[in-house]
Amino acid sequence: MDAFFKAESVAVIGASPTAGKLSYIIMESMLSSGYGGDLYPVNPRHNEIQGSKCYPDMASIGKQVDLAIFALPASAIAESLKDAAPFINAAIIVSGGFSETGEDGRRAEQELLAIAEKEGVRIIGPNCIGIYDAISKIDTFFIPRDRVNRPAKGRIALLSQSGSFALTAMDVFAAEGIGVTRVVSYGNKMDINEADCLDYLTEDDETKAVVIYIEGINDGRSFVEAAKRCAAKKTVLALKVGREGAGKKAAGSHTGAVAGRYEIYRAAFKEAGIIELSGYEDILDACRVLNKLSPVDGKRVMILTDGGGMGVGIADSLSAAGFDLPALPRAKAEKLKGIFPDYFAVANPMDLTGSVTDQWFAEALDLTLEDDDYDIAIVASLWGPPNLTDDLPRLLGEVAGKHGKPVIICSPGGAYAREKNVLFEAAGMPVYLTPEGAVRAARIIAGMPLRR
Amino acid sequence: MDAFFKAESVAVIGASPTAGKLSYIIMESMLSSGYGGDLYPVNPRHNEIQGSKCYPDMASIGKQVDLAIFALPASAIAESLKDAAPFINAAIIVSGGFSETGEDGRRAEQELLAIAEKEGVRIIGPNCIGIYDAISKIDTFFIPRDRVNRPAKGRIALLSQSGSFALTAMDVFAAEGIGVTRVVSYGNKMDINEADCLDYLTEDDETKAVVIYIEGINDGRSFVEAAKRCAAKKTVLALKVGREGAGKKAAGSHTGAVAGRYEIYRAAFKEAGIIELSGYEDILDACRVLNKLSPVDGKRVMILTDGGGMGVGIADSLSAAGFDLPALPRAKAEKLKGIFPDYFAVANPMDLTGSVTDQWFAEALDLTLEDDDYDIAIVASLWGPPNLTDDLPRLLGEVAGKHGKPVIICSPGGAYAREKNVLFEAAGMPVYLTPEGAVRAARIIAGMPLRR
Repeated sequence: MDAFFKAESVAVIGASPTAGKLSYIIMESMLSSGYGGDLYPVNPRHNEIQGSKCYPDMASIGKQVDLAIFALPASAIAESLKDAAPFINAAIIVSGGFSETGEDGRRAEQELLAIAEKEGVRIIGPNCIGIYDAISKIDTFFIPRDRVNRPAKGRIALLSQSGSFALTAMDVFAAEGIGVTRVVSYGNKMDINEADCLDYLTEDDETKAVVIYIEGINDGRSFVEAAKRCAAKKTVLALKVGREGAGKKAAGSHTGAVAGRYEIYRAAFKEAGIIELSGYEDILDACRVLNKLSPVDGKRVMILTDGGGMGVGIADSLSAAGFDLPALPRAKAEKLKGIFPDYFAVANPMDLTGSVTDQWFAEALDLTLEDDDYDIAIVASLWGPPNLTDDLPRLLGEVAGKHGKPVIICSPGGAYAREKNVLFEAAGMPVYLTPEGAVRAARIIAGMPLRR
Repeated sequence: MDAFFKAESVAVIGASPTAGKLSYIIMESMLSSGYGGDLYPVNPRHNEIQGSKCYPDMASIGKQVDLAIFALPASAIAESLKDAAPFINAAIIVSGGFSETGEDGRRAEQELLAIAEKEGVRIIGPNCIGIYDAISKIDTFFIPRDRVNRPAKGRIALLSQSGSFALTAMDVFAAEGIGVTRVVSYGNKMDINEADCLDYLTEDDETKAVVIYIEGINDGRSFVEAAKRCAAKKTVLALKVGREGAGKKAAGSHTGAVAGRYEIYRAAFKEAGIIELSGYEDILDACRVLNKLSPVDGKRVMILTDGGGMGVGIADSLSAAGFDLPALPRAKAEKLKGIFPDYFAVANPMDLTGSVTDQWFAEALDLTLEDDDYDIAIVASLWGPPNLTDDLPRLLGEVAGKHGKPVIICSPGGAYAREKNVLFEAAGMPVYLTPEGAVRAARIIAGMPLRR
């Protein structure tokens, strides 16, 4: 699998000098991503493509290449794969026109698989967009960056049958400042499937959490076993689409896959230790927190706020989700009452009112996280109070770091607040714009299921 | 009540030339909002404030003034109100220090109420931020616009006990392009309460929907009766905070109000025909759609998409919410199959694939909305397909307008998509970034409860 994700050399078979063509965009993506390995365009009809020497075939490159990307018409793939196989370790076949199109396509795909197995080449695809790797900078996503942006390096891997989903997610993550490690869209998953990717990511130290977008799974047993191994070491989350009724019917006609009964998926997720997500919103909320924080073993939450109403909203959501909101231990409460104005509510939620200062917020958080009284703190800071400064995020980040405990920020608002909120993210704390979002984040790191 | 919302003259009692002071910001808000009536600063210690002639007292203005805003220390309010009462029709008392502080404050508030009743002056407050009216441009929200932006004129009224909530909501609405009519934060609601505001808004043609943020209601009967009258004419939504467990406890300590059993609120909402919201996210989702679309009587939804996976996600959410997704009638299906490439899925969801054009999207929508086959259309357009242009939103908007039926857009993505999505909003269609959001919007206009 390293031949895919850590390829030291990449060939683009079917490279084209025509702007806008799929193979052109792949070359462009690889050239602009910062990829540090060797890149070889291959096409017998050209001598040079996008400034790189173009080779007529793999043989003429004169060395073994880790990864070949095939961007040719479906009818030309088998022949080309056969020719290239001796010179490559792995292949991504982006072309469509295989099992997703019916019986003829299924036969053509079987033929590819036979070649791959005979020649010992592992394959991602066909009918996929392949890999975006924020670490090795391998990028076969054939939509230009001005259309679909790519996120920075982070802690999360994403697995998706659907290329369209993977592209949209990357674009959203980039816009929201959420980083990734390795993203794979395996399309028809003729060879490499979810289980293979999970096994690889289980051993990948860069990846702290894995999100899987599932339309249908063919080999349930190997998926569950691989997911179990992975979930024992990191957070694994899954969204199953095409669940019930019209959605299930739509999924069947979209992918041609038999979706299987949804209850079976739910049982499998539970057995494997996978956190099930209820929809697209959950993915974003989950990845935002997992990009910054690690899971915790406990459900005791303290709410610190400068706006009482926001504290109530968070307490509502936490209660409904099954969290505990223990009262502040007496000694700590006495200590804070000695420091704070007497109209501050030293309780849980703790309301520091519009008179709060950076320092008071930091002291309240410090005392909260000290000892073993709370597992998670949610800080709901509206940016209204006049004494708050741009130092607040750094101060809170330092306190969180000192205690090694998760701090989630709930900071609703418009242009002004959103500009300031970037400072919290930079200080290592995920920011949510609503109480519900912040509480979903707490559920994720506490390992509580999102879908009921 | 017109003296509040359509005041032709406004006095600020306790006006100050000191930048940053509450009364200074209120003058500033009124001066910069575009308010077209007469504005009178009142303070015996100054001759001019922010370029306006300052009057020593209300008597010296020499005419009746519709609305006086009192921004004085609590201890000075009663005397000042007594002096001003003969010359004013209505008052907003923003000052805190009354019933929210305990027994002494309660007595002081009773004294104010007695003066108001004796003199025939209606009062909003005390301990409130008052009114932001996007039509008359009356703006007593005493946070500067660079901190908390104000939304444009729209179709939605917002009622909130909490000033902090109203401010945050306005800032978010402004950032999200959601417009309002009249926003009221009544604080201690000593005189004017939810029921008074609801009765006023029931007769207000500009307001198509009302959102109420509730911590606690004192006079349940008059609230339910007023809400019933309002809900008979427009969409009324409510978020009750401080619902259960820790949230309820927190609400009690925040407002001093006895919150009452949550079940009673739920029953009251149901009786009044109020749609209950489950949290802050619902408010945003609901207001986004209500700012563009009117309620419908029916649950039949067609999904049009250019990305099959997105169609599946929407179908999942619609099914879970209890919507119907009827198949396209045979004659319409035959007609579209005659126009479209044969790999388009002419079904529900209808998948026009990455080959879609503006025109094909518009034709599919036109045929969908024709006759009485569907009540709502959700168009899930990813901006990936190369043939889509900036004309798409206008074309779809024209089709929606022709049939007078609601069209909701689901268009996830990052920077590129979000920039393009503004065009949909401009063409009269609300845009959601996730399937779940779009389906919540459909639930709102179909009058289905959000909270289960």
